[in-house]
Amino acid sequence: MSHTYKYPRAALTVDCVVFGFDESELKVLLIQRALDPFKGKWALPGGFVHVNETLDDAARRELTEETGLKDVFLEQLFTFGAVNRDPRERVLSVAHYALVKQKDYQAKAATDAANAEWFPVSMLPKLAFDHADIVATALTRLQGKVRYQPIGFELLPPKFTLSELQHLYEAILETALDKRNFRKKVQGFGLLVPLDETQMIGRHRPAQLFRFDADKYKKLKKRGFNFEL
Amino acid sequence: MSHTYKYPRAALTVDCVVFGFDESELKVLLIQRALDPFKGKWALPGGFVHVNETLDDAARRELTEETGLKDVFLEQLFTFGAVNRDPRERVLSVAHYALVKQKDYQAKAATDAANAEWFPVSMLPKLAFDHADIVATALTRLQGKVRYQPIGFELLPPKFTLSELQHLYEAILETALDKRNFRKKVQGFGLLVPLDETQMIGRHRPAQLFRFDADKYKKLKKRGFNFEL
Repeated sequence: MSHTYKYPRAALTVDCVVFGFDESELKVLLIQRALDPFKGKWALPGGFVHVNETLDDAARRELTEETGLKDVFLEQLFTFGAVNRDPRERVLSVAHYALVKQKDYQAKAATDAANAEWFPVSMLPKLAFDHADIVATALTRLQGKVRYQPIGFELLPPKFTLSELQHLYEAILETALDKRNFRKKVQGFGLLVPLDETQMIGRHRPAQLFRFDADKYKKLKKRGFNFEL
Repeated sequence: MSHTYKYPRAALTVDCVVFGFDESELKVLLIQRALDPFKGKWALPGGFVHVNETLDDAARRELTEETGLKDVFLEQLFTFGAVNRDPRERVLSVAHYALVKQKDYQAKAATDAANAEWFPVSMLPKLAFDHADIVATALTRLQGKVRYQPIGFELLPPKFTLSELQHLYEAILETALDKRNFRKKVQGFGLLVPLDETQMIGRHRPAQLFRFDADKYKKLKKRGFNFEL
């Protein structure tokens, strides 16, 4: 069957920048392309949008098909529409970004992708298409957004120490943060619940574990509270 | 001539939320649709993307064709892809928002649009398609962005008083601001250049005029300066 239109139409894809954090580094999940163009090259998970599905649904479907990831934090990022970004024909890509607790997921190759692997954001291989631009745009968005929305917690395990939280922010913002100021600020929001548990790391004294109070944040947000780091 | 593809393809449009400020109210520029669907209804300026032009170019072209606007501040906002957002068929719209100095432009109807007019953002007529959602998304983006980027100056005349600047922020943020705090903050950045001119408004004493130092902002920004209100 074929489909005919009066004017030429662009093809439409979605691509996903999946960020993970392994307690020291911010990482991006890439797949190795099984097909041309760019066969064998690393690329973002993604693919063509079906004509009867939303962009969000398409991004989630492709993510599951290519990496096995499900039920993740996912937001639309930007639509990339340079005229020659795909060697085949005019293809637009509605880019999304996702945040996952890296430990929860073993990156696994699925149907379309030959291989899926985490790479440090600072040491990505050469990427197919304009995917390096898409990653850069996603990183800028993440760096901006963690400063005024507590989305960083999507990248942490449910129980974390203040050091882990600080390392996460340092990894995302690519800068060292003052320990005292950072703790004062994040604890000042009243959104971190101390748990009756500690964590031993090496020979250090046990560190207090916390969880993020998402319900309280929702309530505060409704009242106009701003999370600002 | 017709164009045939193996799989069905969505049509692609751009739409523009044009914000203006008339010294008291934040406004949006709407056009009255000359054609079905929604003939006679108010809508955002926009139209179909040509297969060989970028999204940015398409948005600027449609804006000029429908409103006469040229060389404005314009950024991509979000891509709206609900499956039934257009009664004709699957149509995706890459929404943009623009900021203009309202005084510089007489909204003028052009080729495709029957009529173009400014409406207060708080009193918009019923809009065609999902354009009310697009305006709401653009307003949220503007409210977020003016707090960390000095884009508000795009909406002001080149010379302005501190009262005008405060009124602009109050109109965008939909809230009253404390005069002393506001002035301390905006003057603290060192980005407002006092001019050798004053402005008389009614019987008040003459108010100092300022201009925004865009060059200095660019330099500061390179060094990692954050504009935060």
